[in-house]
Amino acid sequence: MRNLNENTITQAVINRNEGTQNERLKEIMVSLVQHLHSFAREVELTEKEWEVGIKFLTDVGQICSEKRQEFILLSDTLGLSTLVIAQNHRKPEGCTEATVFGPFYVSNAPELALGANMSEGVKGTPWFVSGTVKSIDGKIISNAKVEVWQSDDDGFYDVQKDGLDHFEGRAIFNTNEKGEYHFETILPDAYPIPHDGPVGKMLQALNRHPWRPAHLHFMITAKGYERLVTHVFKENSEYLDSDAVFGVRSSLVSEWVQHENGQDPYGNRHNTPFSTLQFNFVLNPIVETKK
Amino acid sequence: MRNLNENTITQAVINRNEGTQNERLKEIMVSLVQHLHSFAREVELTEKEWEVGIKFLTDVGQICSEKRQEFILLSDTLGLSTLVIAQNHRKPEGCTEATVFGPFYVSNAPELALGANMSEGVKGTPWFVSGTVKSIDGKIISNAKVEVWQSDDDGFYDVQKDGLDHFEGRAIFNTNEKGEYHFETILPDAYPIPHDGPVGKMLQALNRHPWRPAHLHFMITAKGYERLVTHVFKENSEYLDSDAVFGVRSSLVSEWVQHENGQDPYGNRHNTPFSTLQFNFVLNPIVETKK
Ligand SMILES: [Fe+2]
Ligand SMILES: [Fe+2]
Repeated sequence: MRNLNENTITQAVINRNEGTQNERLKEIMVSLVQHLHSFAREVELTEKEWEVGIKFLTDVGQICSEKRQEFILLSDTLGLSTLVIAQNHRKPEGCTEATVFGPFYVSNAPELALGANMSEGVKGTPWFVSGTVKSIDGKIISNAKVEVWQSDDDGFYDVQKDGLDHFEGRAIFNTNEKGEYHFETILPDAYPIPHDGPVGKMLQALNRHPWRPAHLHFMITAKGYERLVTHVFKENSEYLDSDAVFGVRSSLVSEWVQHENGQDPYGNRHNTPFSTLQFNFVLNPIVETKK
Repeated sequence: MRNLNENTITQAVINRNEGTQNERLKEIMVSLVQHLHSFAREVELTEKEWEVGIKFLTDVGQICSEKRQEFILLSDTLGLSTLVIAQNHRKPEGCTEATVFGPFYVSNAPELALGANMSEGVKGTPWFVSGTVKSIDGKIISNAKVEVWQSDDDGFYDVQKDGLDHFEGRAIFNTNEKGEYHFETILPDAYPIPHDGPVGKMLQALNRHPWRPAHLHFMITAKGYERLVTHVFKENSEYLDSDAVFGVRSSLVSEWVQHENGQDPYGNRHNTPFSTLQFNFVLNPIVETKK
């Protein structure tokens, strides 16, 4: 302990952490310290670079607020979020895949009746979304909680709009006795993740763009099933092959059908364009023997 | 890019970062992403644990201020600082070893004449510190800039004291034509690193104490020589074998001689105890061929 050097320091730190009663924490710290040190050794990190790193992490922390979570953005843009989600949701073939949560979810969105319009009057192309929620074994799941959230036409979520005192583009629906959900809203568009902060600077230094393809967020919860957090992506949307947060899965890309005019699913006629989306979700039952 | 999963995500992120013009940044990001992902895979990080990690890093960033650098504390307590310093200061045998910088340095300390008292009247045992600055080849280094900083008797640095409008326990001296420095101050004591924040919580969870053995900080700068950032530790100080930030080197542990009374190095008589420290520094010349 009195003769630490670049070779002995790693084991010394691991030994020091041995005293914790929390076995899982100990396991995590062993791996964390080894990889942190291996990184610094492998690139022969200089003191100046270490300072840049300290400054960067400090800036990421300082810009965080009630409305902004820059460390989630960092995790997302480094692919860590996608990795963690994937390894925690290994599911049977046929189940709807999960993807990144993102920073724009809020838990207290309004609960609306099926068929309601959740756009709250925000301008945009009318969009009629519907589908079913079923189990992998084909069973209908009624009364599943379907939480939906989306950006507007300009790529902004309600929580990004200063001084807004109500929700826009987010709601909670419950599936009916046939396991169906349906609602009205407006078409969201591709948007850049917030890039006026340190993560934006990082992307710029890496010559990466901050854009995400157009998508609609879903979180589906039903008793006895693994919670599903996912998106439905728009087929042919720009950035499908370069999503800034690595969230795209082929199985989640879906046709968002454009109609020049005509009758919407609720039987109302439109003389101007509207779109429809039909997407069916398949949930994974929680088996008792799983941990 | 549309079928990312836990196995393909790492290479996808590395590929995305390929576009940067900054070759060194690219190299660093490859290693960083690989080790970050390997860590998450190795411990099979859960989503809940990921959330705890995001929250922890956010808290570390949020507590940072002009006066507090919690990310440096984190780096120090994880041994990263010691590793980075060690691998950047491989020096010939006989040179004074470097150790952690710590978060309490300030660059605009007062420049004092040799022999001055830098304690600014803070209570404590008088301490007379002296020594030489030489090159590894034995050459005297005159006019070396010797920056010194220390905690007080209670383990606090001046910058930790709210509302203090002057410096205490820090100064800049210059070696004389014989390469000598000497000054008066008070004895510092062992102290805990700031542990009322997230890093303190981490140490507690790991069943680790936050204490550092008694030490005096030095930064020595001289034209033509590698800058030396180091401490002199007190022999027999508690925590020498468990320094919270892994900063101790045997070669930096030195006898801080206690005197019950008698004559100090400046010829003044004391009827109460005082201490003396003699420590000689050896600098490493910068050779042109070094990068
Ligand atoms: Fe989104
Ligand atoms: Fe210190």
